[in-house]
Amino acid sequence: MSARGINIEAVRALHDERIDWRFKGMPSDAFGTTVGEFLATRPTVFDGGFVGPLLTLDRAALEHNLRTMADWCAEHGVQLAPHGKTTMAPQLFGQQLAHGSWGITAANTSQLRVYRAFGVERILFANELVDRNGLAWLADELDRDPEFQFCCYVDSLRGVHLMAEALAAHGASRPVDVLVELGSPGARTGARTKAEAREIADAVLENPVLRLVGVAGYEGEVAHDVSDAALSAVDGYLERVRELVAELAGAGHFSGLDEVIVTAGGSSYFDQVAEALTKPWPTGLPVVPVLRSGGYLLHDDGFYRIRSPFGREHRLAGRERPFRPAMRAWAQVMSRPEPGLALLTMGRRDASFDQDLPEPQVIRGADGAVRDLPAGSCRVRALADQHTFLELSGADPQVGDWIGFGLSHPCTVFDKWSLIPVVDGDEVIDLIRTFF
Amino acid sequence: MSARGINIEAVRALHDERIDWRFKGMPSDAFGTTVGEFLATRPTVFDGGFVGPLLTLDRAALEHNLRTMADWCAEHGVQLAPHGKTTMAPQLFGQQLAHGSWGITAANTSQLRVYRAFGVERILFANELVDRNGLAWLADELDRDPEFQFCCYVDSLRGVHLMAEALAAHGASRPVDVLVELGSPGARTGARTKAEAREIADAVLENPVLRLVGVAGYEGEVAHDVSDAALSAVDGYLERVRELVAELAGAGHFSGLDEVIVTAGGSSYFDQVAEALTKPWPTGLPVVPVLRSGGYLLHDDGFYRIRSPFGREHRLAGRERPFRPAMRAWAQVMSRPEPGLALLTMGRRDASFDQDLPEPQVIRGADGAVRDLPAGSCRVRALADQHTFLELSGADPQVGDWIGFGLSHPCTVFDKWSLIPVVDGDEVIDLIRTFF
Repeated sequence: MSARGINIEAVRALHDERIDWRFKGMPSDAFGTTVGEFLATRPTVFDGGFVGPLLTLDRAALEHNLRTMADWCAEHGVQLAPHGKTTMAPQLFGQQLAHGSWGITAANTSQLRVYRAFGVERILFANELVDRNGLAWLADELDRDPEFQFCCYVDSLRGVHLMAEALAAHGASRPVDVLVELGSPGARTGARTKAEAREIADAVLENPVLRLVGVAGYEGEVAHDVSDAALSAVDGYLERVRELVAELAGAGHFSGLDEVIVTAGGSSYFDQVAEALTKPWPTGLPVVPVLRSGGYLLHDDGFYRIRSPFGREHRLAGRERPFRPAMRAWAQVMSRPEPGLALLTMGRRDASFDQDLPEPQVIRGADGAVRDLPAGSCRVRALADQHTFLELSGADPQVGDWIGFGLSHPCTVFDKWSLIPVVDGDEVIDLIRTFF
Repeated sequence: MSARGINIEAVRALHDERIDWRFKGMPSDAFGTTVGEFLATRPTVFDGGFVGPLLTLDRAALEHNLRTMADWCAEHGVQLAPHGKTTMAPQLFGQQLAHGSWGITAANTSQLRVYRAFGVERILFANELVDRNGLAWLADELDRDPEFQFCCYVDSLRGVHLMAEALAAHGASRPVDVLVELGSPGARTGARTKAEAREIADAVLENPVLRLVGVAGYEGEVAHDVSDAALSAVDGYLERVRELVAELAGAGHFSGLDEVIVTAGGSSYFDQVAEALTKPWPTGLPVVPVLRSGGYLLHDDGFYRIRSPFGREHRLAGRERPFRPAMRAWAQVMSRPEPGLALLTMGRRDASFDQDLPEPQVIRGADGAVRDLPAGSCRVRALADQHTFLELSGADPQVGDWIGFGLSHPCTVFDKWSLIPVVDGDEVIDLIRTFF
C-alpha cells in the first residue's frame, strides 16, 4: 500500500490498538494484546476464540473489487472518490487510495474529522455544509495543512450566505471550494433548475471566502430501480448536469481554474454517469469527472447485487467482471423450539435489515465442515434486536451449528461493528477498525 | 450513586476518557480534554461547539423514569433486571442499580464481557448460551470472582448437552445457574410445552456443571399489540409459566434453593407480568420474580409511547405516572430545494427507523429561540443513510435552522452513538459512554 493521499503511519498505528471487551466478537484470549500481535498468532475464524455473532470480510473479494473498479475507472477516464461513509475504515480508505482513488467522499462534519485524523488529503464533502461549528473547524484545518484539498456543495442562496458569514466571522484565510449542486424535482438536495443553480453560482463569485470549482449531482434519487424508464430518467438528469456545466463555463464562472470538478455517481448507475461525464466538453474546459460510488468495495447479497451495473447482464452483456460480495456474518443456532424454526444469535444490532434481510448461505455443523445450504432450504423471516428468526423448509440446522449469511446494504452493516476480521479462507489476516 | 452491584470506580473512570474525533457530534474544541474536564466548562448544547446531528438525553426524564419504575417495582413486589442491551452504557447501569435494580440483563457473550469489565455483579443472560468460547470465558470469570452471580436459559436437551460438555471440557469449578425457558408456539425461543420443559429440567439435574435455579419466559413475542386479545394471550402464557414453576417445585427440582428465580417481562406488558408472578406460589417456595424491562429508562416517542402499560389509560385509569421520553435528536436543515421539502443532516446512521420514523417536535431558528412545531406542520417522509427528508405542510424551516426530533425504539438509537450528552435545560451535565 502506498502512502498516497493518506497518513500511512496513522493507518498502520491501528495495528497497535489493544483488543479488549470494547470490540464485540473478538476472542477473550486476545484481550490485552495488540491487533498486530494477535494477527501474528495466525488465528482462524473458528479456532481463534471469536464469539458470535461475527462479521467477516473476504480478502479475495475485497481485492477483486478494488482492482475491478480501479481498472474500470481508468479505462473509462473517470476519477473515483468513493464514499467513505460506507465503511468509515481508514485502512480501507488507504487501500482505495492505493488503488488510485482521487479522494474520499464524506457526508458530515464528524466523518470529515475522522478522515482528517488519518490525513486524508482530498475530501469531497457531498453535502451542503452550513453548520457554524463545522465551518470553523474546516477553516482551521485548511489553514493548518496547505496540502488539504476540500470541496463541498451549495444549493441555495441562503446556504451561500450562511457559509460566507461563518467563514468570515471565523477569519478563514483559505477560501472554501464549492460545487453548485443540481438536483431534480422530487429528488434530494440540489437546485431544481439550471436557472437557480446559475443564480447560486453568481452568489458564490461575490463571496471571496468561497471559490466555485465545479458542479455536483446525484442521480441515485432520480431513479430507484433498473427499469428502462429509471435508466432513462438518469440519463436525462445527467444531460442537465452537462448543460449546467457548459452554461456556467460559457458565463466565465470557471475561468482561471486548472480543474473543473464535475461529480455524480452512487453505486447503482455509475456506468451511465461515467458515460455522461466523459462525453466531449466545451473546448478547453479542464473537466475532472469524479464518481463517488462506495458500495463496490464490499458489494453485497441483496441491494447492490440487483442494482450494480456490472451485475446487469442485459446492459453490459457479460463484458464486465461483476463485483463479489465481501461480507459474511456468522451466527450460531441457539434454539430449535418447534418444527420449521431456528433462532440464532444475530439481530438488528449485528446485521442490516433496512433493504433486505440476511441470506443464509452456508452451514458449519459439529464436524467443522462448512457446507452450502441448498437454495430455498431456509430463509430469515425476521430480525429482532438480538435474534434471527430462521424459517426452515428443508434445512435442518442443530443447536450449536453456525450459519453464514450474505448481507444487503453494507452501509448499515458496517456501522454495527468496530473491529472486523478479514479472512483468507479460514485464516484471519487483518482486523479492520471502523469509526462511526 | 451507590456502588451497589457495579464497580463504581470503573464507571467513574469513564469521565477520564479523552474526547476526540472518534466521538461524533462532540465539539472539536474539546478534543484532547477529558470528559470530566469538558463538563467542568459547563457547556451548552447550542453554544458548546457540538456538531450535528446530535443525540441528547434529558436529565429530568431519566430521573423521573428511574424513580417511577423503582417505586412501581417496590410497590408491586417484583425485582428488576433491566435489559442492558438497550443502552450498553455502564453509567446508566450504575444509575439503575443505585435505584434498586436486582441485576442487569444481557443478550450475548460480547455484552456480558462489557458488563463484567465494569464489575456488574448479577447478570441475567436472557438467552441460551451454547457457544464454547463464551462458556469458557464465563467459567473463568465465575472462578475469578466468587461474588459474580450469573444465570442463563436452557430450552433444549441438546443445549443442555452442549453447555455441560463445554463447561466440563474447560474444567469449570463453579456450576452455571440456568433457568428453563418456556416459550409458546409461534413465538421466539423456549420449550413449547411444559412437558418438554420438565424433560429439560431433568437433564439439567443430571449435569453437575449446571444448576437449575428457576424458570424464564418472554411474553413480548406472544403478543404484538395492546388489543384485548393480545393482553389476554399474555395472561394465558404467564399462567402456563406459573404452572411450570409449580410442577417443577412439586417434582422437587427446586429443593434446597434459597431463591427460585422466575423471570419474564419486556417493556410492553410488565404490569401483567408483575401481577402474574406475585400471585401466591406453592407454600414455602422462595420465588424471586424478576422483570427485565429495559425500555422504561429512555422511553420514546413512538413504539413504547403506544405500548408502555403506564401510557394505556384504559387499563390503568390514569393511576400511574407515565414514563417520559428522554431522547431528542437535533439535526440541521441543509437544503430547501423545492416547496414542501427540507433535507436535514440526520440519517439512518443517527436515528432509529425500524419501528417509526423520527417525529419533528421543536425548531430553533436563527434567533436562537426553541419553539414547538405545530402538530401536523411537518413529518419525516424518509431517512436515507445520511439525510432526513422532511415533508412540510405548514412549517417553514430555513436552511441553517435546527429541528429537534422525538425518536422511537431506544435500542436502535443508542447503538448509533458512543458519547451522548445529558442535558438539564440547555446545559450539558454529563456525557454517557456506550459500548456496542
